Amino acid sequence: MVRLRWPHPNVVSVTSDSTIPVKIDDFYPVVPAGGVGSRLWPLSRPDRPKFLIDLLDTGSTLIQDTVARLAPLGSELMVVTGERHAPAVAEQLPALGARDIVTEPSPRDSMAAIALAAALIEHRHGDQIMGSFAADHVIPDAEAFRAVVATAVAAARTGKVVTIGIEPTEPSSAFGYIEAGAELDGTPGAFAVEAFTEKPDEDTAREMLATGRYSWNAGMFVVSTSVLLGHLARLQPTLESGVRALAAAWDGDGRADALAEIWPTLTKIAIDHAIAEPVAAEGGVAMVPGSFAWHDVGDFDSLAALLTPAEDGAVRIGRDAAVSLVDAPGAVIVGGSKPVAVVGIADAVVVDTDEALLVLGRAASQRVKDVNL
Amino acid sequence: MVRLRWPHPNVVSVTSDSTIPVKIDDFYPVVPAGGVGSRLWPLSRPDRPKFLIDLLDTGSTLIQDTVARLAPLGSELMVVTGERHAPAVAEQLPALGARDIVTEPSPRDSMAAIALAAALIEHRHGDQIMGSFAADHVIPDAEAFRAVVATAVAAARTGKVVTIGIEPTEPSSAFGYIEAGAELDGTPGAFAVEAFTEKPDEDTAREMLATGRYSWNAGMFVVSTSVLLGHLARLQPTLESGVRALAAAWDGDGRADALAEIWPTLTKIAIDHAIAEPVAAEGGVAMVPGSFAWHDVGDFDSLAALLTPAEDGAVRIGRDAAVSLVDAPGAVIVGGSKPVAVVGIADAVVVDTDEALLVLGRAASQRVKDVNL
Repeated sequence: MVRLRWPHPNVVSVTSDSTIPVKIDDFYPVVPAGGVGSRLWPLSRPDRPKFLIDLLDTGSTLIQDTVARLAPLGSELMVVTGERHAPAVAEQLPALGARDIVTEPSPRDSMAAIALAAALIEHRHGDQIMGSFAADHVIPDAEAFRAVVATAVAAARTGKVVTIGIEPTEPSSAFGYIEAGAELDGTPGAFAVEAFTEKPDEDTAREMLATGRYSWNAGMFVVSTSVLLGHLARLQPTLESGVRALAAAWDGDGRADALAEIWPTLTKIAIDHAIAEPVAAEGGVAMVPGSFAWHDVGDFDSLAALLTPAEDGAVRIGRDAAVSLVDAPGAVIVGGSKPVAVVGIADAVVVDTDEALLVLGRAASQRVKDVNL
Repeated sequence: MVRLRWPHPNVVSVTSDSTIPVKIDDFYPVVPAGGVGSRLWPLSRPDRPKFLIDLLDTGSTLIQDTVARLAPLGSELMVVTGERHAPAVAEQLPALGARDIVTEPSPRDSMAAIALAAALIEHRHGDQIMGSFAADHVIPDAEAFRAVVATAVAAARTGKVVTIGIEPTEPSSAFGYIEAGAELDGTPGAFAVEAFTEKPDEDTAREMLATGRYSWNAGMFVVSTSVLLGHLARLQPTLESGVRALAAAWDGDGRADALAEIWPTLTKIAIDHAIAEPVAAEGGVAMVPGSFAWHDVGDFDSLAALLTPAEDGAVRIGRDAAVSLVDAPGAVIVGGSKPVAVVGIADAVVVDTDEALLVLGRAASQRVKDVNL
């Protein structure tokens, strides 16, 4: 059996304009924008989630970057977000119309959000290939990303649920993994998915990487709306009927009543458990490998790793004010308008916002979610 | 030869009101108020030196505590400070009159400040026993302190320069030491001083402590103005004549002219080198031992050691806002009105003022003076 090996020979290499995909007529990008990013507190907060932040200090927010990366592929684009954040999303994305921002009255996990998007797209446009991509991931090479998405769209035309598998660069315990099988006949660059696995421990991840068959699961799904809603009708029928009823009422006068009646009844479940895992077990999921750099900037450690330290050794994010370091290698200084000194602590992360101050040992970055303020 | 041994049998024990000294008619306390306290930045700053701060969060500043501790012993009291801080000193000590606050146009080290005080006191009142005590030391037991000062005043009447030696509680390398000889005839509780030593390293300090003859030099001097100025006339004659000329002009119209002419000519020297060391070598210095607790709160480590942690383990100084600790034992949180979280760093000191933010590993407290902002 032919199996995937990293680096994969089919991985797209962008060397000339001819390889850059242009608009795909029936492709419809969807960006679910949810989650707080609680390990990036106090930069992120419930009222200022990670996707609304200029996390890399580049002048644009993560959702702006995500939409800019996807927009060239489709004619339209849909963002699904919570009521609380819809005004900020609209403000940050002025090119989107009111129809393009789908507002959830309350969070009901990723399957409800993506299924509602699928039902709305199909109701408005008929069967389309939709692609769902999180609003808060960092992918510096947009062209390489779009080339992989184009391959995934081609695979989705065969009726598969297609996921994009990220080439692992380390045995991370922070991500779930996708186990690939043989390359699919007739769809070059797409592989059967044997299984999805939960986040492993680092030793297990190392063993998995040694096989050459595992990629990171970045939660990217490309699938036709009819295939997605068809699986949903079998596996989560109340969800399927619920989102179809919502979609039918959405663009008319009945939206508010339908939401009030139906939304609270929708099953709270992640797309991984509702669709990806059971359909993979049936042989219905394919994976397209992506070798582009991909970052789920989950905490201050991974954020700092993406940035270049200044001459004094400190990484600065969103800060112009003075920094003085005394025996403080590896400092990371985020925000704040006052001078900051760090003395006698290695790998200190100092995050100063208008609302709160965080002083963190970089190795403990995951524990920021335990702060109780 | 009888030598001092710690704990000293003559150490004053305050057990009843009868042992508490009352006002001593010819005793004149002097408080030189200088020095920034650069290791307590940004709590202390050049425009807000240590002595003007409520360092222990008790509701009174160090100079207020110092003056309150000394005031019962004398009829008057004199503070010598720099021009920049005289307004704040006057504001913090409303009981002092304009004559009681002596303002230096520029810092010329401790001998000029103390000699000017001696000359002014003698010019105004004739020969007095003066006692000089730094404005920024912490002595919780004021009564025990005053009892030792009373013993020192009695010893000063014999014509000695008298210092108060603090019983060492550890082999500190942060202080100079006083080596004691035999107890003096006729002045119970006072000992000859063999020598003053500079700050030793810790091993040397340990050997010194083992002899039982060494006490900490806290820079406290009790001496009659005539004896002090007499030594000065021999050892630093231009300083002596300079401060006498300043004193003669001080309370009349000629002060500004005299200061402009004389002040810049005064020798810049510490009282230790100008008087204490050479006079000790001649046998003219006595030491009265003090067993009261004494703290030269020089840095955040020693400051935190004086305070009791809250239930969560963090020492708080000048702060009411919320603190959240995650794997952060031994935290010290100073000032600031925003919530603070410390995650994954032990013994972190966080000092948040309006002007700057310091994040410090407590063991590196001495290095705060190297901050360059």
